[in-house]
Amino acid sequence: MTAAFSDMAGFRAALAAQPEADDVALAAARARNGQLTKPPGALGRLEELAIWYAGWRGTERPAVTHPQIIVFAGNHGVAAQGVSAFPAEVTAQMVLNFQHGGAAINQLAKTFGATLDVHALSLDHPTADFTTAPAMTEAELVAALSTGWAAVDPEADVLVVGEMGIGNTTSAAALAAALVGGDAAEWTGRGTGVDDAGLEIKTRVVRDGVALHAQKGDGLEMLRRLGGRELAAMAGAIARARSLRLPVLLDGFICTAAALTLEKTQAGALDHCAASHVSAEHAHAPMLAALGKTPLMSLDLRLGEGSGAALAIGVLKGAVACLSGMATFAEAGVSDA
Amino acid sequence: MTAAFSDMAGFRAALAAQPEADDVALAAARARNGQLTKPPGALGRLEELAIWYAGWRGTERPAVTHPQIIVFAGNHGVAAQGVSAFPAEVTAQMVLNFQHGGAAINQLAKTFGATLDVHALSLDHPTADFTTAPAMTEAELVAALSTGWAAVDPEADVLVVGEMGIGNTTSAAALAAALVGGDAAEWTGRGTGVDDAGLEIKTRVVRDGVALHAQKGDGLEMLRRLGGRELAAMAGAIARARSLRLPVLLDGFICTAAALTLEKTQAGALDHCAASHVSAEHAHAPMLAALGKTPLMSLDLRLGEGSGAALAIGVLKGAVACLSGMATFAEAGVSDA
Repeated sequence: MTAAFSDMAGFRAALAAQPEADDVALAAARARNGQLTKPPGALGRLEELAIWYAGWRGTERPAVTHPQIIVFAGNHGVAAQGVSAFPAEVTAQMVLNFQHGGAAINQLAKTFGATLDVHALSLDHPTADFTTAPAMTEAELVAALSTGWAAVDPEADVLVVGEMGIGNTTSAAALAAALVGGDAAEWTGRGTGVDDAGLEIKTRVVRDGVALHAQKGDGLEMLRRLGGRELAAMAGAIARARSLRLPVLLDGFICTAAALTLEKTQAGALDHCAASHVSAEHAHAPMLAALGKTPLMSLDLRLGEGSGAALAIGVLKGAVACLSGMATFAEAGVSDA
Repeated sequence: MTAAFSDMAGFRAALAAQPEADDVALAAARARNGQLTKPPGALGRLEELAIWYAGWRGTERPAVTHPQIIVFAGNHGVAAQGVSAFPAEVTAQMVLNFQHGGAAINQLAKTFGATLDVHALSLDHPTADFTTAPAMTEAELVAALSTGWAAVDPEADVLVVGEMGIGNTTSAAALAAALVGGDAAEWTGRGTGVDDAGLEIKTRVVRDGVALHAQKGDGLEMLRRLGGRELAAMAGAIARARSLRLPVLLDGFICTAAALTLEKTQAGALDHCAASHVSAEHAHAPMLAALGKTPLMSLDLRLGEGSGAALAIGVLKGAVACLSGMATFAEAGVSDA
């Protein structure tokens, strides 16, 4: 579908007009959960996850049968400064790898029965180096948001957005520093595995970017100034999912940074998002904490591509299957405590 | 198949003669993992999990296509002392619920493509109250071990063993206290949700059992004295899996206690076992630590039935799919760092 906005103001307006979860379905799911054949609370976090999902899907007995994973790829002007362990060509090479089915996310999509769509965003035109100028013009940002918005399948029942983009942990760190506060060094990590010298450059780049752009606007404006096309597309897709009452499983550091820009534009914009995992990138944990999200898993992942969130599709499927498929004490003739 | 033992000594001999992982496959899987299109280590714990699995399956590119879940149910003499929030009849009622497809483990088995087998072990004859006598005779123990041994499908490629048995966290706590040490109170928790008065009784029961039986033999002897039929069947199944080089995903507190008795009978007996999750039962974490096992997940589960391990089948499938299905840098034409 065509995006519901044509400029940043329009996107902000769309964010402000989003639907909420269905309170009736939420209450019904919570009541049903309390009658299932298990000790109260014995399924732990699976219970809250399934009830949250039921609220967004508007039914007390939902099913997860059509997960969609979308991977967005973009290139970053700051990559030329040597912030990554890999050369910028790897972004395009990995897009081919996604298309040929050779990447981790291809295997995980297959494992969890998800469709996988890949969108490469103007890879031949990296964003501007944010240490000297805003990464994107308003038109570039809106185009990327629109790509993300339009990429979401309205028939999907859970969404994962992932990314590929050499240099994009640098963008994510800068967004976190600008939007949450704290020193650049606290938010800057090794990404794909940069060495000590590279980490020093990366931290300086983040610091310079924050010095130039912070305090110049809201989350969306920071996304334009410090983000990248794949981050903007993720944000657009997350926003579109909300308009469809489609729950989103957030992935790692970069996906969460993209999501953070929405929350810092419109409080509550991520109520339809759950945190799949906390990654090995050390700044992911404080970023999730800033969003008030508790991750479902902690597996030392630091790959991106939506890989951690794809794994969480399995957890979500299990949780929802229990809520929707289990017998109640009365149905099963089991003595309640 | 018929069990390879007819008494406790025979079971000990079987444990001592178990196969090891295939070093050649392990090394080949590790080498392959290092060439896949991702930054080194970026799949975190999925990498170690897949390599471990490859070693046990004896191939560098394994697949997980036939998971088996077996739930064993047993009744406990100590239940009569009021150690549980639920009456002992619930064990048999839940077996019917498993058979009718209404329990959590039924939904999780379906979600992760696992077969589910349920074995009720002499539910009408609870074990003896271990505060006054050994829970089982040698013949009863061997029968339960044999049931577990015979229940494993040799065609399975990963095994989950779960349990149902009102009173069995009491057995598990007593086994931990007897085999790891420490006070009864450290190992005794609320199980299915016992109240303060029940917790006091439960702690006293554990303390009395440990006082009567600890230091009277090895892990297997403690299993006979403080365990239960479903715990013994789990131990038998875990041992049988090892003889088949079949990896096991350990579930929660009770499953891990059953496994602990094997490790305390024959060091290394659990090398083919991975810890799926750490449960909300507070003593599960120190029990896993005593075994040197780091859990894959922490979701505040405390249901048993094999539920946490069933969820981990999804993680294992994802990990193995990445190892076996991803392209190498050379295959994909991606620049290595």
